Amino acid sequence: MNTQFPWQNLIAQPSLSFRQAAMDHQAQLTKPAGSLGQLEQLAITLAALQQTATPAADRISIAVFAADHGVCEEGVSLFPQAVTGQMIANFVTGGAAISVMARELNAGLEVINLGTATPPPLAEGVIDAQVGAGTANLARQAAMSESQLQLALQAGDDAARRAADQHSQLFIAGEMGIGNTTSASALACALLGAAPDELAGPGTGLDNQGVQHKMHVIAQALSRHGDNPEPLACLASLGGFEIAAIAGAFIGCAVRGIPVLVDGFIVSVAALAAVRLRPELADWLLFAHRSQEPGHRRVLAALDAQPLLDLGMRLGEGSGAAVAVPLIRSACALHNQMATFADAGVSNADR
Amino acid sequence: MNTQFPWQNLIAQPSLSFRQAAMDHQAQLTKPAGSLGQLEQLAITLAALQQTATPAADRISIAVFAADHGVCEEGVSLFPQAVTGQMIANFVTGGAAISVMARELNAGLEVINLGTATPPPLAEGVIDAQVGAGTANLARQAAMSESQLQLALQAGDDAARRAADQHSQLFIAGEMGIGNTTSASALACALLGAAPDELAGPGTGLDNQGVQHKMHVIAQALSRHGDNPEPLACLASLGGFEIAAIAGAFIGCAVRGIPVLVDGFIVSVAALAAVRLRPELADWLLFAHRSQEPGHRRVLAALDAQPLLDLGMRLGEGSGAAVAVPLIRSACALHNQMATFADAGVSNADR
Repeated sequence: MNTQFPWQNLIAQPSLSFRQAAMDHQAQLTKPAGSLGQLEQLAITLAALQQTATPAADRISIAVFAADHGVCEEGVSLFPQAVTGQMIANFVTGGAAISVMARELNAGLEVINLGTATPPPLAEGVIDAQVGAGTANLARQAAMSESQLQLALQAGDDAARRAADQHSQLFIAGEMGIGNTTSASALACALLGAAPDELAGPGTGLDNQGVQHKMHVIAQALSRHGDNPEPLACLASLGGFEIAAIAGAFIGCAVRGIPVLVDGFIVSVAALAAVRLRPELADWLLFAHRSQEPGHRRVLAALDAQPLLDLGMRLGEGSGAAVAVPLIRSACALHNQMATFADAGVSNADR
Repeated sequence: MNTQFPWQNLIAQPSLSFRQAAMDHQAQLTKPAGSLGQLEQLAITLAALQQTATPAADRISIAVFAADHGVCEEGVSLFPQAVTGQMIANFVTGGAAISVMARELNAGLEVINLGTATPPPLAEGVIDAQVGAGTANLARQAAMSESQLQLALQAGDDAARRAADQHSQLFIAGEMGIGNTTSASALACALLGAAPDELAGPGTGLDNQGVQHKMHVIAQALSRHGDNPEPLACLASLGGFEIAAIAGAFIGCAVRGIPVLVDGFIVSVAALAAVRLRPELADWLLFAHRSQEPGHRRVLAALDAQPLLDLGMRLGEGSGAAVAVPLIRSACALHNQMATFADAGVSNADR
């Protein structure tokens, strides 16, 4: 599959010299060596990615990508499809979880409509990037055309460009799309060569019978798709517009030197597709949390990810990533502001 | 053992009506039911404790209790004992991890000196509550006298009173004391009837040989102490001044209606002693994190605690609790600010 998306643009490697300097600095701070655990690693990783002695996550861009899914006609969600559009309005009017968190974090929040089945309620401030009235029913045909995939990837890259224009130090993608755990599970199965029962779960709250039906729908889609793990082919066949856009956004961020904080199950599947396209992207991904959605564990393992939080969240919208942001800010503040043994006149360990 | 500390003051039960109202409110917010996981439970618990529809953790008191430990003469720590005093100065001059976090959180920070082996460097702002020049060597004799225990418990209650005077919505205790993982491990063994190898760990960074020696020192102390699990007797025999003070502070907070966010291993052992004294205290304890110190798992289990974070931290000072504060603030913001399905015109699940 050909694409105009700038796949070949360079993704820089993390700076070894800034990484080493950050490690040396951590060893001088007034604490037992290693005693800040993952917070030390976070600060060191960010220093290497941002190429700085003083890593920071003050300026944050959150982009929520929304789209509808034709597979909803198979009855895979508890919520009516109209909720995608209704939530788009809720995002921009400030009542959704991610809207609350963006305010709390003083982060920029963009809402990007990739295409809903019915027009969403009128709401100011939604970025219109519609590539169709939702995907086709992936259980029965390819979810999208190659040109629709192109447009979705490009919409993601556009969001990354805007984040770069705003000098963002960290990028978060959220998603909204009734039915999109079915799409993400099918996509993960195809990328990983896994069976539906390894990746499908309750989503917004299906019971056991509902999950069984969802597995059957995913099996039908995989049977149609075949065993082709090529990521662009998988995205077009099984993806959602918002999932493709997130994959494009993550590559676009890495190309532009912006670290990414990955949210939950659906965003992680988009990240997996993007890493399969551009393995160098992996260095640029931080992982916020382990979702309650059971398939997330498998996807995180495939990405060799050690997420920061495990709070039983399964809301989407980028909410898990947003909740994890203060941990990154704390890691930076400790790295940048703590006294050294020498400065504070504190004796170091007797080794 | 008699004590003047007001042990018999009433500790209120969480409000059942505010708990139910908070649960009902959560069910109306624009998200799948239960999808905020532990954050929902946090908001509901705080609403019940604070007796409010809008729980909050804006006003926070952090009290760091510091003291020295006679058991250091057994060679149980990598750090020289002078570090306790040096770190007291570092806390108030702003270079320690907890100092950085208190600034980031806009939280009040008190540093309380319960007694160091040598006078700490001169530093403005330390609260002087010295009850002795460190404890006696608990491997060979009781760590403190009954009257010293009284004074330490009272110093903790004083900190709780000041937090109440400042209308704090959440209390955090931190600790500093070279050698205090040895004291805390011995104390936990006595309270739980456990063996030293179940509770002792590397502390600030002992190697295997060092941990073995520490276990031997703890076994010696337990042999001297006998099998008396009565908490005041255990605190006097095996505790530290700062550990006793934290136990007193937590009971003092619950008596005054202030929820407590429990830090790591040492603070959790103080909480365990306090809960053994006043079982109703348990309702008032939130747990911040699982420390890297291996014995913490056992102590958390004894307290039936489900901590928020597991980041491999083992610094003390209250730093793990401070790092968890934004999770509580996020839980409150989401509870208080999200739109309901009705307000936002969003369709709820089809059940």
